[in-house]
Amino acid sequence: MLDDHHTPGLLPNQQVGVEIGSYLTGYADGEGCFSISFSKSRRHKFGWEIRPSFSISQNGDRAEVLQIFQERFGCGTIRPDRSDKTLKYETRCINDLVERVLPHFERYPLLSSKRGDFERFALICRMMYADEHLTQEGFERIVQLASRVNNGKRKFPREAIKL
Amino acid sequence: MLDDHHTPGLLPNQQVGVEIGSYLTGYADGEGCFSISFSKSRRHKFGWEIRPSFSISQNGDRAEVLQIFQERFGCGTIRPDRSDKTLKYETRCINDLVERVLPHFERYPLLSSKRGDFERFALICRMMYADEHLTQEGFERIVQLASRVNNGKRKFPREAIKL
Repeated sequence: MLDDHHTPGLLPNQQVGVEIGSYLTGYADGEGCFSISFSKSRRHKFGWEIRPSFSISQNGDRAEVLQIFQERFGCGTIRPDRSDKTLKYETRCINDLVERVLPHFERYPLLSSKRGDFERFALICRMMYADEHLTQEGFERIVQLASRVNNGKRKFPREAIKL
Repeated sequence: MLDDHHTPGLLPNQQVGVEIGSYLTGYADGEGCFSISFSKSRRHKFGWEIRPSFSISQNGDRAEVLQIFQERFGCGTIRPDRSDKTLKYETRCINDLVERVLPHFERYPLLSSKRGDFERFALICRMMYADEHLTQEGFERIVQLASRVNNGKRKFPREAIKL
């Protein structure tokens, strides 16, 4: 039906299609969320569990993009978000974050100010990957960096997280 | 600072950067909105003005992506959205939509179910570009198609728009 109409601006035989890595970075720049949350835990050193997460929430009618992220990254889960009627793709596993998610966003960098969040998030993930969060200095540095990821939106403000 | 840490998954000398057309389609697949609105108007044929719009709303802290859209498309305006504290990039001009916006999304197609909305939106824009909305048959076809853009979310339901 569209063929009935001329397409100004599109040259004949011009290659059509998106480069998927760049597409996913564009999608994530709008809809993605890098976050570091803290929960009180007696099982963890210094009394706090540190939980990095990369997630994307989406209405169920566009679940196909979440599936593309899952296939491309080869990690993460898609599940209903309890808080509303959306689906959520999420990767929390530190090995997957460091080995699969971070390299994607370094190969295909974010263009919005979310990139600053990503860079602090990446540094925290790599510190945890190297077990630096188990030292007092590393833990304190992570708490400080986390206050500058996502404007520090989290249940416990930075001041509340003490050794 | 990031250089202090090994980057698993990223090969040395691997090319870094996003392909901007694909990035913008990814961003728009999440955050963009194709809509057709109708307003009662004595000045327009059949008593209704038909207004197609491509828009992207964004918190002010990520205005840079809206600027990339504006530069890339060479059209549209960025202004504060009255309804909340966001900025909105919007193109309403039918010539710009047909000559600049539609060709982008045909060269770099959307991957989510929003693509169906886009295709109906594109058809309506091209019909208007060809003045087909000034015939009764064309007008009725546009009303019918518009009810299937964005799940027909609009002020006036399809049944309310009569000749």
